[in-house]
Amino acid sequence: MRLKVYLAGPEVFLPDARAQQDRKIALTRAAGLVPLAPGDLAIPPQPSKRALGHAISAIDEKLMDEADAIIANLTPYHGVSADTGTCFELGYMCARGKLVYGYTNVAADMRSRSVAHYGGDVHVDTAGRLRGADGLMIEDVDMADNLMMQGGIERRGGKLVVHQAAPDALYTDTTAFEICLALLAERAGLRPRSLAAG
Amino acid sequence: MRLKVYLAGPEVFLPDARAQQDRKIALTRAAGLVPLAPGDLAIPPQPSKRALGHAISAIDEKLMDEADAIIANLTPYHGVSADTGTCFELGYMCARGKLVYGYTNVAADMRSRSVAHYGGDVHVDTAGRLRGADGLMIEDVDMADNLMMQGGIERRGGKLVVHQAAPDALYTDTTAFEICLALLAERAGLRPRSLAAG
Repeated sequence: MRLKVYLAGPEVFLPDARAQQDRKIALTRAAGLVPLAPGDLAIPPQPSKRALGHAISAIDEKLMDEADAIIANLTPYHGVSADTGTCFELGYMCARGKLVYGYTNVAADMRSRSVAHYGGDVHVDTAGRLRGADGLMIEDVDMADNLMMQGGIERRGGKLVVHQAAPDALYTDTTAFEICLALLAERAGLRPRSLAAG
Repeated sequence: MRLKVYLAGPEVFLPDARAQQDRKIALTRAAGLVPLAPGDLAIPPQPSKRALGHAISAIDEKLMDEADAIIANLTPYHGVSADTGTCFELGYMCARGKLVYGYTNVAADMRSRSVAHYGGDVHVDTAGRLRGADGLMIEDVDMADNLMMQGGIERRGGKLVVHQAAPDALYTDTTAFEICLALLAERAGLRPRSLAAG
């Protein structure tokens, strides 16, 4: 039985969301895996905006429940950190005991991005903790985002792949995503199609 | 058996993190509930920053596994949306079938905050979707943050309490947190201590 992979990330917000998700879906199939992505299922009309939100939430959770694995696009979104919906989904899949992988298209780590957020106006407190100008502690544990994410992935044998995409390809560069696919396929005991076809 | 509640939120980053968490712990006990909070357990020395991150991740997941419920502080943090670690934890608890509650100390909803992020430079596309100047879609489903969070909470019978705190009390105002405690206590069949003691 082929591994089903939930494709989590902020691609759903892109102007060409369908095309970008279709690219990831095709890459997933090429890796010998079965893609499950938000937007795959049609959503019937709803009586209110809030009800629409609930319907999408229900469908995405259903897809995750069906999946064996997740690849979470943790590229920073509208701030220092990743898209919050994707983070929710990564936590959800960790709790369900699924295979968990992630990637980011920004190489600067959580510490570097946080320091940049403060324009460099940071200091080390008396306890040795790095803090921003407003006193908020900056996580400094050699990770790409909040430690719950990278910790949750790595402690389960997964990997968070870090790659620096070009500025205009932050949400469309699939280099790191393809590395995750290869790692998942390897874990599932699949040979890459290029070899399998030989 | 008394309900155990995991207290998730960015309080761990505050200059007076211990004091603020102790306040929330005391309020939780006063509501007749058992608080479990990040930072409650000591972490042994680790060989590297990354290993320290893993150790904290493991302890926080262990606390969540022991808890019956979560109250997630979803107040925006370093950007448009909530602290990503808290979002991960909310997803984790939804997947484990626990009781899920959340709150935010910023009344402006996801749409309003996103529009503000773009300085008002937004437009509606031909499909009727609200988008920022960079083309990224703005979620407009009458929710406080990404729909996975509020959808996950409300679809499970929980509540996301919205409150506007004073600017200097964004991460310390406990009004909305206390409403969550009361809702959880009511759901657990507990009477508020003020009544129980009468």
